[in-house]
Formats: sequence, C-alpha cells, structure tokens
Amino acid sequence: MQAARGGVGVLLVGPRVALHAELGKHAGSAALPIEVVEAADVIGMDEHASDVRSRKEASINVCTALVKEGRAAAAVSMGHSGATMASALLTLGRIKGVDRPAILTHLPAQGGFTTLLDVGANADVKAAYLAQWARLATVYLRVVEDRENPTVGLLSIGEEDHKGSALVVEAHGLLRAAHGQGVNFHGNVEGRDILRGTTDIVVTDGFTGNVVLKLAEGEAKVLFGWVREALGSTLKSKVGGLLVRGALRGLAERMDPSTYGASILLGVRGLTFIGHGSADARAVKNALLRAERAHEAQLVARLEAALAGETPQSV
Amino acid sequence: MQAARGGVGVLLVGPRVALHAELGKHAGSAALPIEVVEAADVIGMDEHASDVRSRKEASINVCTALVKEGRAAAAVSMGHSGATMASALLTLGRIKGVDRPAILTHLPAQGGFTTLLDVGANADVKAAYLAQWARLATVYLRVVEDRENPTVGLLSIGEEDHKGSALVVEAHGLLRAAHGQGVNFHGNVEGRDILRGTTDIVVTDGFTGNVVLKLAEGEAKVLFGWVREALGSTLKSKVGGLLVRGALRGLAERMDPSTYGASILLGVRGLTFIGHGSADARAVKNALLRAERAHEAQLVARLEAALAGETPQSV
Repeated sequence: MQAARGGVGVLLVGPRVALHAELGKHAGSAALPIEVVEAADVIGMDEHASDVRSRKEASINVCTALVKEGRAAAAVSMGHSGATMASALLTLGRIKGVDRPAILTHLPAQGGFTTLLDVGANADVKAAYLAQWARLATVYLRVVEDRENPTVGLLSIGEEDHKGSALVVEAHGLLRAAHGQGVNFHGNVEGRDILRGTTDIVVTDGFTGNVVLKLAEGEAKVLFGWVREALGSTLKSKVGGLLVRGALRGLAERMDPSTYGASILLGVRGLTFIGHGSADARAVKNALLRAERAHEAQLVARLEAALAGETPQSV
Repeated sequence: MQAARGGVGVLLVGPRVALHAELGKHAGSAALPIEVVEAADVIGMDEHASDVRSRKEASINVCTALVKEGRAAAAVSMGHSGATMASALLTLGRIKGVDRPAILTHLPAQGGFTTLLDVGANADVKAAYLAQWARLATVYLRVVEDRENPTVGLLSIGEEDHKGSALVVEAHGLLRAAHGQGVNFHGNVEGRDILRGTTDIVVTDGFTGNVVLKLAEGEAKVLFGWVREALGSTLKSKVGGLLVRGALRGLAERMDPSTYGASILLGVRGLTFIGHGSADARAVKNALLRAERAHEAQLVARLEAALAGETPQSV
C-alpha cells in the first residue's frame, strides 16, 4: 500500500480471499492501484527450492510468469530466496553472455554505499562468472543508481595483483583484460575496503559474499547493542545517552538493511528482487520503488546490450 | 620492556647496535631480562616471503632458529607475515598429522571472544585441512585459554548440513565424523554467528577467514567513526557525547585488536606468533605474555599428542 500510494501499480500474488481480507482492513486500499492475482500454493521457507519445477501454482511461479508474459514489470519476493532464484531462472532464463545469475546488494559504507555481488546465488564459481558480474553490476549502477563509470574491486586477501586464491588470481587477469571495456577495474580490495567504500562495486563468489553480508549486518547489530549497553552502564552515561539518542537513531537507520529494500537477481531476463524474510513495510516499499526505477531505466535491455558479444562458458 | 617487567625473558633479535641504542633510551632497561641477539639482515614488508630460503641471517630466520635450538620458547614477529610463516615452516617443520599450518586469531564477540582460523595462511584448502584445524584449535583453547570442551562451527552460508560450497559440504562430513573424538562439532555457522559467539571456534579457509578478519576490524573502525560523527553533529549530542565518552572508551578498547596481541601459527613444531605490522606496545606485550602462557601449557607437545594417529593428506 505504501508503494501504491507512491504511484507503483502492484499485483499482489497469493490466496485471493486472504489477501482481499487483509486489504479490507486498511482504509483507502480500494482506491489504490493494487490488483490481487490468485496463487493457491506457496513454497514454504523450509521446503526445497527445486519444488518450483513441479508446483506451477506456487505464488513465486505465478509471479515470474507475470513478468515473462509482460503483465508485470518485475517480481519482488520476501519469501524463499532459493525458490525465487530457481523460479526466475526457470521461467525467465538467462541473459545471453551470462553463465550464472548473481545476487547484488548494497551495504552502507563511507560516502554512501558499496555494491556487493554475488551474496549467495553461487557457492562455487568460475573466474569467468566474476568478470561477467563486474559488467552486470557496472550497468546496474550506471542506469539505476546514476553512478558514472563506477569502480570495480575484486575481493581478495591482499592488494597486490598476485594475492589470493587460484580462482581470484585468474579472475584478476580477466578483469584486468576487461578494464576500459565496460569495466572500470580498480584491482584487488580487502575486507576492510567494503565499508570504507574504496570501490563502488565489490565482486566476489557467492560463498564469500554471503559470509560478508551476514557478518556486516550481524556486526552492526552486535556493536550497536554494545553501545546501548555502554550508555546504560552508569548514571552519567545514562544522562548523556538521552542527549545523544536522536543522533544515534539516524545512524541506526543508515545501518538498517530495509533502507535498501531488497537485493536484485542480476543476469536473468526479467527484473527479480529478493528481500529478507524478516522485511518490514519500509523494506517492501523500497524494494517496489527500486523495481520501478530499474524498469523505467530499461535495466534488462541495457544489461543484454552490454553482455552481447560475450561468450558464456557453458551454454 | 613491558613484558620483561612482567617476568618474560626476551631475546631481542635484530641489528645489535641499533637495538642497544634503543634500549639505552629507556631508564631501567639494563636491569630487565632482555638479551640482544644479532641479526644483520631483515626481510622488508615489500620483499618476498620466499626470501627466507636464501637469507639465513634475516632476523625472522634467526628467531625461528632460536626456537628450533631450544634457546627460545617462542618466536614473536610483528613483521612480514608471509616470511614469518615461511621461516617457521622451513625451520620448525609441521606437526605430524597436519597438512598445512593455519593462523588462529580471536575476535571480540558477545560473551567474550570467538576464535577464528585460518585467517590467511592458506587461500586454497582441502576439506581435510579444516578438520585438522578444528582439532588444533580445540587443543589450543583448552590448554591456553582454559575453555573446557570448546564448540566448533564450520563457516557456511546456511545452517543446514547440506548448505555451502562443495568444499564446505565435504568438510562438514569430516567434522561430523570427528565429533566426540577431539572435536565438539556444533554444525554450520553463518557470518552473523561470528560476533554473536554462537560457537567458541569458527573454522574456515584462509581466504574467507582473512576477508572476515579484515571486514570485522574495518567495520568496527567505520562504525565507531560514525558514532563519533553523530555525537558531534548537534550541540545537544555534543554535550551528551562528553558524558558518554568514558563508557564508550571501554568499548573501543574491547574492539581493539591489540588486546589479543598477535595471532598464532598453529601446526608448526614450535610456538610462532604473528602480529599486525601496526602493532603498538600493548599488542607486543600481550603477544609475549600469550606466548609464555602457551609455552607453560606445553602447547606444542599437547598438539602433537592430539594429532598423533592422524594421517595427513600429503606427506
């Protein structure tokens, strides 16, 4: 409803009766551009992603089919991440030149945010994937976030070109070769560079990226908990705590993942956004606004154009 | 000098004249148990770790030789990490049953600290290494840090047994098999669990571990910088900031890597500690005290006993 009030037309996919009942609780919902689309089945959080193959009536499959048919501009899900990825890949297919789609997300960083991918779609990767993702993320930042010529860092364990795993050293060579041709390659970056914002984009495999994402979010929570604890530790700090509360609240909001709404599955032929299962209304609204921006910027067509001419590893 | 005042006998390895000149600046140093050992050469931070093979007079080689000969209980270096590892491996050799030594470090966490390894010795690993490291870290925590039956988590991208990269899934099987036999295996843990302290030990490859370490340290710095910024943003928060300064200082100290002094290279036949190049006096003192504790606990002999009967992958 928040997004619809902002002008985004929403197709709400799920059990029609329950969704209408829910909408009915909110005054004014009938006047908003919200349409309910029936989906009798849902893939639960504890079920298998591969179920999307057989359960055509599952809400996520209905969602991605709407995108495939052109009835929806984007699929946005806060449900089963694996099922969302599988359904998007199955229904929408891959962009030519992309071996594997990757999940791209944003982390708060000095000077704004750092764009990180892959944060979990591919635990095992090839060097060529990383080079393709650098291209995809560059187009994404340029057309959706208005960043001109964004810099790309390759996550490694030393800044020198030869540092890192065998995979990373190989990817470094590919990215070096791509520099100036759709990728503004900065070189290797380290864990500390992610929140420093050394580069606009950080490319890594989906295992490391997922660990980074969960560590970064988890650490922010733990540290703010400790700050709160410290502020309550003495009478003096309690009084001071009351005075600084407003200033710290702005900071907490900045660190809140829901600011960025959802991650995008980059590399499929259709817009697909994947959010946290714990997403709140603000996160859902921001995800829908971001989806609309990506659609208006013709992101998928721009990605296809940028990757045309690339030879994927596997066909 | 701080450690020597605490009763640790120190062999200071380096250019004799310069070291004596430095000691001479500090009143009372002559009465402390500090002996200077000549080493004319030093492997600089921008030189190659492999130089330890040819440059026998390099300070790190003199250091590890002192350990090998039994003249020193431990080697402690805040210099070139790669050279320290290479020199220790070359001079001291591996513990039987250990394929590759790993670097173990501690990160502040809820309830104390989390022990993480490998944080950078091995960018490319085999599953068997992770299982060996779990054993080594268990012995370390038990004998040096007095933790009874410490729990071991395997870093992955989902808590379920089958989640993760092919390597992690294989390691999971090995750790599951080792459970109850020298390893108290908790199962998979995620990035967010590291600072939550879900397990005492987190085992991972040296690539992921190094990214985690540098991200965790970097994020703490960035977040505290933002807190400081927020406290200085308005007159009200400035006044409050003065009142909470003391409380936050304790927290900053807790997050300071120098609290833990240095990391230990686990798996070589002799105590070897590797610190930050940017280590301060407190870090060096704490590293020396930790080295003494490990020596008194007969760590290397305990590790050898625990790994006896293990068949390494490579010989």
